[in-house]
Amino acid sequence: MSRLAICPGSFDPVTYGHLDIIERGASVFDNVIIVVFNNQSKAPLFTVEERVALLEESTKHLPNVTVDESNELLIDYAMQQKAQVVLRGLRAVSDFEYEMQITSMNRKLNERVETLFMMTNNQYSFLSSSIVKEVAKYKANVSDLVPEAVEKALKKKYS
Amino acid sequence: MSRLAICPGSFDPVTYGHLDIIERGASVFDNVIIVVFNNQSKAPLFTVEERVALLEESTKHLPNVTVDESNELLIDYAMQQKAQVVLRGLRAVSDFEYEMQITSMNRKLNERVETLFMMTNNQYSFLSSSIVKEVAKYKANVSDLVPEAVEKALKKKYS
Amino acid sequence: MSRLAICPGSFDPVTYGHLDIIERGASVFDNVIIVVFNNQSKAPLFTVEERVALLEESTKHLPNVTVDESNELLIDYAMQQKAQVVLRGLRAVSDFEYEMQITSMNRKLNERVETLFMMTNNQYSFLSSSIVKEVAKYKANVSDLVPEAVEKALKKKYS
Amino acid sequence: MSRLAICPGSFDPVTYGHLDIIERGASVFDNVIIVVFNNQSKAPLFTVEERVALLEESTKHLPNVTVDESNELLIDYAMQQKAQVVLRGLRAVSDFEYEMQITSMNRKLNERVETLFMMTNNQYSFLSSSIVKEVAKYKANVSDLVPEAVEKALKKKYS
Amino acid sequence: MSRLAICPGSFDPVTYGHLDIIERGASVFDNVIIVVFNNQSKAPLFTVEERVALLEESTKHLPNVTVDESNELLIDYAMQQKAQVVLRGLRAVSDFEYEMQITSMNRKLNERVETLFMMTNNQYSFLSSSIVKEVAKYKANVSDLVPEAVEKALKKKYS
Amino acid sequence: MSRLAICPGSFDPVTYGHLDIIERGASVFDNVIIVVFNNQSKAPLFTVEERVALLEESTKHLPNVTVDESNELLIDYAMQQKAQVVLRGLRAVSDFEYEMQITSMNRKLNERVETLFMMTNNQYSFLSSSIVKEVAKYKANVSDLVPEAVEKALKKKYS
Repeated sequence: MSRLAICPGSFDPVTYGHLDIIERGASVFDNVIIVVFNNQSKAPLFTVEERVALLEESTKHLPNVTVDESNELLIDYAMQQKAQVVLRGLRAVSDFEYEMQITSMNRKLNERVETLFMMTNNQYSFLSSSIVKEVAKYKANVSDLVPEAVEKALKKKYS
Repeated sequence: MSRLAICPGSFDPVTYGHLDIIERGASVFDNVIIVVFNNQSKAPLFTVEERVALLEESTKHLPNVTVDESNELLIDYAMQQKAQVVLRGLRAVSDFEYEMQITSMNRKLNERVETLFMMTNNQYSFLSSSIVKEVAKYKANVSDLVPEAVEKALKKKYS
Repeated sequence: MSRLAICPGSFDPVTYGHLDIIERGASVFDNVIIVVFNNQSKAPLFTVEERVALLEESTKHLPNVTVDESNELLIDYAMQQKAQVVLRGLRAVSDFEYEMQITSMNRKLNERVETLFMMTNNQYSFLSSSIVKEVAKYKANVSDLVPEAVEKALKKKYS
Repeated sequence: MSRLAICPGSFDPVTYGHLDIIERGASVFDNVIIVVFNNQSKAPLFTVEERVALLEESTKHLPNVTVDESNELLIDYAMQQKAQVVLRGLRAVSDFEYEMQITSMNRKLNERVETLFMMTNNQYSFLSSSIVKEVAKYKANVSDLVPEAVEKALKKKYS
Repeated sequence: MSRLAICPGSFDPVTYGHLDIIERGASVFDNVIIVVFNNQSKAPLFTVEERVALLEESTKHLPNVTVDESNELLIDYAMQQKAQVVLRGLRAVSDFEYEMQITSMNRKLNERVETLFMMTNNQYSFLSSSIVKEVAKYKANVSDLVPEAVEKALKKKYS
Repeated sequence: MSRLAICPGSFDPVTYGHLDIIERGASVFDNVIIVVFNNQSKAPLFTVEERVALLEESTKHLPNVTVDESNELLIDYAMQQKAQVVLRGLRAVSDFEYEMQITSMNRKLNERVETLFMMTNNQYSFLSSSIVKEVAKYKANVSDLVPEAVEKALKKKYS
């Protein structure tokens, strides 16, 4: 049986924490689709197109990973793609409660899609797109936190 | 690619909370092995043999699920079985921190085995083997909490 | 001694999670007043009048429950109504810390009003007004999450 | 309608943290029964009789409070006493998750008994019977932590 | 060896909770610099100048404490001041996770500056600048929560 | 002013997580005393003498660090040594609540000794003496988790 997993997020921008989950997901499932969702209230730094391009650049070494975007409800998107699994990373207790709420709601809406979680590698447990943007704004070195393409894109945005 | 997941635990005894995770795991992975580990310090109520028998009885409707026991380190057992995945349920914040510790240690010992988590269904989020034993001791009705075979076995132990 | 409990909230809109707490509160206290507070920074979806109307419609089967609105400090409102108790639901750890902060502040301002908490029923522990609005926006079915009147009102808002 | 609340615990021994909850409970409910449960696995310092006597001494200024002991399941005891409410104190996140588990189980066993929680006063949020015993063992001054009768009883036990 | 500690924050406005940490810090370290950072997204109530003035008025009894402001990254500011230590207060689990994230990032940027934490005194564990502003808006008495100068400044802002 | 910090613990045995805190403490304070406390209920693997010897071996590169043992209350020991500071590591939310309880009690007993916390380095956040013993029992490789002397001592104990 071939297994397809969806990795949803806003990825504004993708970090090494996201890539850790994506790479490990790509080794467990046959195919992985990363989906950029654009339904957030906060003003993003990068456009959906920019975020998709940065993800494609950062995952081009992973042959079974593709990148997509969506304006739908996650569960509807997963059904259309015939994905059995939604894959999410967990870093901290606050993540856990938020993810538990979203997962319960998704199960209420559709029981056929399972959400599976991976614990983020310890070395990235403090990492988030927000904190990367916060320090990049001050010209701090973020080369250990994000792929090279993202580092360049951040420099351009904040120059 | 065929996927094998290991479901480790002490299962003293198996509850509907465990079965919820096992059934959902059996629908996501090609094969699931439930493994009873006997390395706990606490005095168990059921012997390993009894626990294995109750698990076999409770999962006989799941053709891709088998039950085993082990006295080894989880990660060594997983390697021997050529399992790519360890599957665990998460109920609460306290679970989360404990599981994060175990998972980090396992990754330190062997990076090739991935631990994946499922959020326990809300209706079982309060359920544990300990609390079932606690109320069964007082002859309370546990038929909503454990499979019939376990209910009978508990009655026998506490009669 | 007759006991009056206040159920404060923004109820934007009322969900089955809120109703679970209100119904159980109405069985423990002689009278319950649900109070819609309008002192929030976030832009609400429903006006205070609409929220009061939806609460009245959803609680008309509860003879000892009334609905009110207020622009005052909770503790001042409770004193005016001669209420001994403020009743709140707890769903998760994040709720707990926020409620602990508010309760401590209220006790600092006035020790005569007690805040009592009920654990939200497991089946609604993931439910919030925000997540209902989030999925209703995508035309998902919310009939298991909110009373019929609220379902209709949400459809109208998002049509 | 007359309201009876049950305050269950092991009270080994009663502290000012317990008394804070009991006193506030006695002002909200018509009658309060404090019940010492003796079903714990840990070896207690005080016998059930000693614990009951210390509670009676410490609550003699509260006319609507009585003290009892029980070897039954809490929910069975509450039904026999025709109590509508079980009252518990909450100090911290770890309390919260444990209480949520117990409360969910009790609701599963019997929906007619409601569990209500009060946040422990900040000044006692660190206080537990265990930590009092721990420091009393070293002859530290515990007069701010427990009633006078308990202080004397601890001195006697550890002399 | 002379030890300099930095106390960073937005202090909008300073509360007795902040002062508790500052005073205890001033007794452990040779010198303390309180730094008002102005890099927050939320619209502040007080200007940086007003916040600095209120801090200076509230700490004038502490000879080894000075007040400053900065628009830089905390770690850059600390290096310029040759401070070995950043001192932060911890009130609750939610604080803990946020501080852990910031501290990990700061260590990533510069390992030579250590972040040390103090647990906020229990009596102020519920206190935050936000909740003080929230109740001051309703003319509630905040004299137990903030220094006299802040109380006056809040009255002026909300009159 | 010369600053002395106490690092208390059971250290059964010392791990790289403990050493991380000790080394960072030794760079912030003039002198550090590591104190092995032997007041725990659990049966230890190593005797107090063995634990002290392993700590001395593991910290011999740190000239301002000494090792001691005590059977007293931490706060009494700190007073005798004229230490101003107790230094503790924080790994997780569960640590946080336990440490908050102990710190509050210590402040109640003696306000002159301050407890300061450091966040454990991410790479050791999963590490504890218990989990090291658990895996060492199965002959797993622990050379990344504990100093060489401890590794040898563990091998000897479990051979």
